Amino acid sequence: MVADVPSFGTPNEFSLAIGELREALPGDDSVSTDADDLERHGFSLYDYHPGVLHSVVVYPLTTDDVVKIVNISRKYGMPIVPYSGGTSLEGHNRGHASGGICVDMSGMDRIIEIHEADSDLVCQPGCLWVDINETLRKKGIKLFFPLDPAPGATIGGMLSTGCSGTNAVRYGTAKGEWFLNATVVLPSGEVIKTRRRSRKSSAGFDLTKLFIGAEGTLGIVTEVTIRLAPVLPTTVAVVHFPDVKKATEAVIEVLNQGVGIQCVELLDDLFMAATNKYGMSMRKWPEKDSLFFKFQGHSAKSLEETAAVVKSVVERHGGFGFTLAKDDQEATSLWADRKNALFSGLALLEGDDGKGWSTDVCVPPSNLPQLVYETKQDLSEIGLISTIVGHVGDGNFHALLLFKTDEELEVARHAVHRMVKRAIALDGTCTGEHGVGIGKKEYLYEELGYGTVELMKTIKRSIDPLGLFNPGKLYPDAPGVTEKVDPRSS
Amino acid sequence: MVADVPSFGTPNEFSLAIGELREALPGDDSVSTDADDLERHGFSLYDYHPGVLHSVVVYPLTTDDVVKIVNISRKYGMPIVPYSGGTSLEGHNRGHASGGICVDMSGMDRIIEIHEADSDLVCQPGCLWVDINETLRKKGIKLFFPLDPAPGATIGGMLSTGCSGTNAVRYGTAKGEWFLNATVVLPSGEVIKTRRRSRKSSAGFDLTKLFIGAEGTLGIVTEVTIRLAPVLPTTVAVVHFPDVKKATEAVIEVLNQGVGIQCVELLDDLFMAATNKYGMSMRKWPEKDSLFFKFQGHSAKSLEETAAVVKSVVERHGGFGFTLAKDDQEATSLWADRKNALFSGLALLEGDDGKGWSTDVCVPPSNLPQLVYETKQDLSEIGLISTIVGHVGDGNFHALLLFKTDEELEVARHAVHRMVKRAIALDGTCTGEHGVGIGKKEYLYEELGYGTVELMKTIKRSIDPLGLFNPGKLYPDAPGVTEKVDPRSS
Repeated sequence: MVADVPSFGTPNEFSLAIGELREALPGDDSVSTDADDLERHGFSLYDYHPGVLHSVVVYPLTTDDVVKIVNISRKYGMPIVPYSGGTSLEGHNRGHASGGICVDMSGMDRIIEIHEADSDLVCQPGCLWVDINETLRKKGIKLFFPLDPAPGATIGGMLSTGCSGTNAVRYGTAKGEWFLNATVVLPSGEVIKTRRRSRKSSAGFDLTKLFIGAEGTLGIVTEVTIRLAPVLPTTVAVVHFPDVKKATEAVIEVLNQGVGIQCVELLDDLFMAATNKYGMSMRKWPEKDSLFFKFQGHSAKSLEETAAVVKSVVERHGGFGFTLAKDDQEATSLWADRKNALFSGLALLEGDDGKGWSTDVCVPPSNLPQLVYETKQDLSEIGLISTIVGHVGDGNFHALLLFKTDEELEVARHAVHRMVKRAIALDGTCTGEHGVGIGKKEYLYEELGYGTVELMKTIKRSIDPLGLFNPGKLYPDAPGVTEKVDPRSS
Repeated sequence: MVADVPSFGTPNEFSLAIGELREALPGDDSVSTDADDLERHGFSLYDYHPGVLHSVVVYPLTTDDVVKIVNISRKYGMPIVPYSGGTSLEGHNRGHASGGICVDMSGMDRIIEIHEADSDLVCQPGCLWVDINETLRKKGIKLFFPLDPAPGATIGGMLSTGCSGTNAVRYGTAKGEWFLNATVVLPSGEVIKTRRRSRKSSAGFDLTKLFIGAEGTLGIVTEVTIRLAPVLPTTVAVVHFPDVKKATEAVIEVLNQGVGIQCVELLDDLFMAATNKYGMSMRKWPEKDSLFFKFQGHSAKSLEETAAVVKSVVERHGGFGFTLAKDDQEATSLWADRKNALFSGLALLEGDDGKGWSTDVCVPPSNLPQLVYETKQDLSEIGLISTIVGHVGDGNFHALLLFKTDEELEVARHAVHRMVKRAIALDGTCTGEHGVGIGKKEYLYEELGYGTVELMKTIKRSIDPLGLFNPGKLYPDAPGVTEKVDPRSS
């Protein structure tokens, strides 16, 4: 068995590795030690975890390039960290203290095959999901990829993070059946394809799933087949509630009606106030906990039926001010208020120097009101301003904790810690869709139990015995014996 | 690294193990070496793979019982094979030539918790899915578990096989997000719980998925949390086509409409003839390739809209004789013709001694017509009668190959072999939902490639280093070097 802390090569060996990378990869720009490049890949504008620079950034264009890089990394014991959209929020792409190779996949951004009749598509991992959907639209193909994290996210990062987004209440997450197969360069340098292209298979456990949420610790994905869903007419409605509990109860009942709900987002009173203050909305909203619905259906008639059913259910649960978009333009404008979450949230702080710590947790839906209530009370007691946006149908919510000073940053960091503990105590998870990276790894033993994390590590060691793939991420250090936690007793 | 063929204990050690099992498990009936018991667990009425008896059958009632059994199996090097519904079709539960312990989970059949507001339920692995749905119905809870394999299937077997069924076109498969977590006794005797109960989590790769489709080779599942879906009004329609190609094209277009399709089944001309001959149908059907639809929707109005949309699409693709159920009774009666597949198929053979070999393969949907066409031509050339039932929306089909004599059985076996080869050549899989067992394992290298199967074996060895868990199933023997196959080149 390999130790928890692997031993890496020396700085001298890393220099030799960089020389070999320059020889192995074609083109002048495919290997970079430029200071700006290292800075851009070693830090993130979106999170406040400690950052470390990589030694070198490489830009492969093919699976064979990645094989060469992996073989050089192994030869010199050099850590290797895949990088794609760079939108992750938990420090997934940070460098390692020993130095290492950052593998920037953004050049591998081709759509390789579109199988319209099969509703699937083969692409490289550097493709942005928004570009894929735009390409399909321009070609007149009425299909789309429904996982919708940040617009800058790439297919490779989405797979590796186990992402989801606002559409998950209808389409599920990356852990469902949207990734049909993946071509992966393993730490051994071997290339595998996890599955063929059929939608279903019971030919053993599905190795595709092993790489979903593995955050680049088990291999580097170089090609992916994704499933697509039909594009359908949609419209948007907004409704307000006296509190989060009533809103959540309404959502639970709405989802059991079998009408076409593509999204249902909970925006709290402070979020609504932020939207008013931000000033980009066409409306002045009541500053109340609110639900934003996106309906989908075959026809205008089915959208109308859905709207009528939802209106009746939400009003039975104390919902008021139900507003249904009159046309597509109004629907887009209403939904924009939801999409402006980050910028409108920051507007709550006076001046231009406000920052936000974005985090997410997830609990069984019926536990969401308690989690939101206790979190808001906590934040209000410590005087931190925060907006909450919840994928309420899934029990998942994001908090944006606002701060200006380093002292306030520390207060926010501790508030996130308490929020995670609270979610785990409510049979939930430290992260519903942002992933672990370095920001959440300390919680995995408590959330999953000692044996479960050890099994993850056993698999990691069997695939990456040298521990070179994205070291220091995802897997927590082993706790002392006295700290062992068994979640089955909770 | 452990060798492909593990070494097991001696017959004398197995006798000691059986003695220890009797001491460890409470009750007189929890350890059995009764000949009928061994016969019932070592063979199957549903398949024609070679059978081997287990040495002993044990009946645990708790997770702790299973831990004791696993520890005794490890102490004496005795193979251990979990058994639940016994409905599997590829010899998953067969004994091992060296002898071993069959762990019959049927006594662990309790529903532990129902969380109606969260649409989930915690149960033991011996629960039948039909019993779970019946319990929910009786309690007036309008939720159900949508995976629908054979009615005798249990939750544990469904998870371990990676099952699906007729509802998969709407709800996806066991490899999707229906199993929220599993409590598993590992080969080490350690008990883990893979996840908590939140619907979503990005806390690393999902270990639940590792056990889905692992066929009991990585651990024994002792508790499961499953997600439930709302029960909705449904109705049934039937339509006929000139050929499978036109029927498949119609289905592809129907599925892109966004109307409520819960099931769409393709029954071939011979199946329809069999239904007529079987004589249990309320109708005399045209003996043509046909589609059976189950529609679902919020209301009678939405079911009507779906029916109108589907009728218009299928008629554009040459569909004729569109029949929509007038009421629930007619819907049930129409759907019964689909459900009687096995019995009506057997009716095609004269006399009472007809048998059927049931197999399944799956390809990308647009390749289904070619697969069906070539398969029917093959079967007709060798003079074997066979009905075809396809989950056409997923590209998955079942063939029931009829035979009477041992000679015909061998002809059927070879025809299945060619069918699998054909599916793999069409970018498909040797099994869409029946699993691998011993019947399909020889195809995994060809389907998945050498490295992918070796990675599965690496994981198997890291979790079960002694190779005691369901040995001889799922993982194929390594091919000679000259037979190595790389599916990426296909």
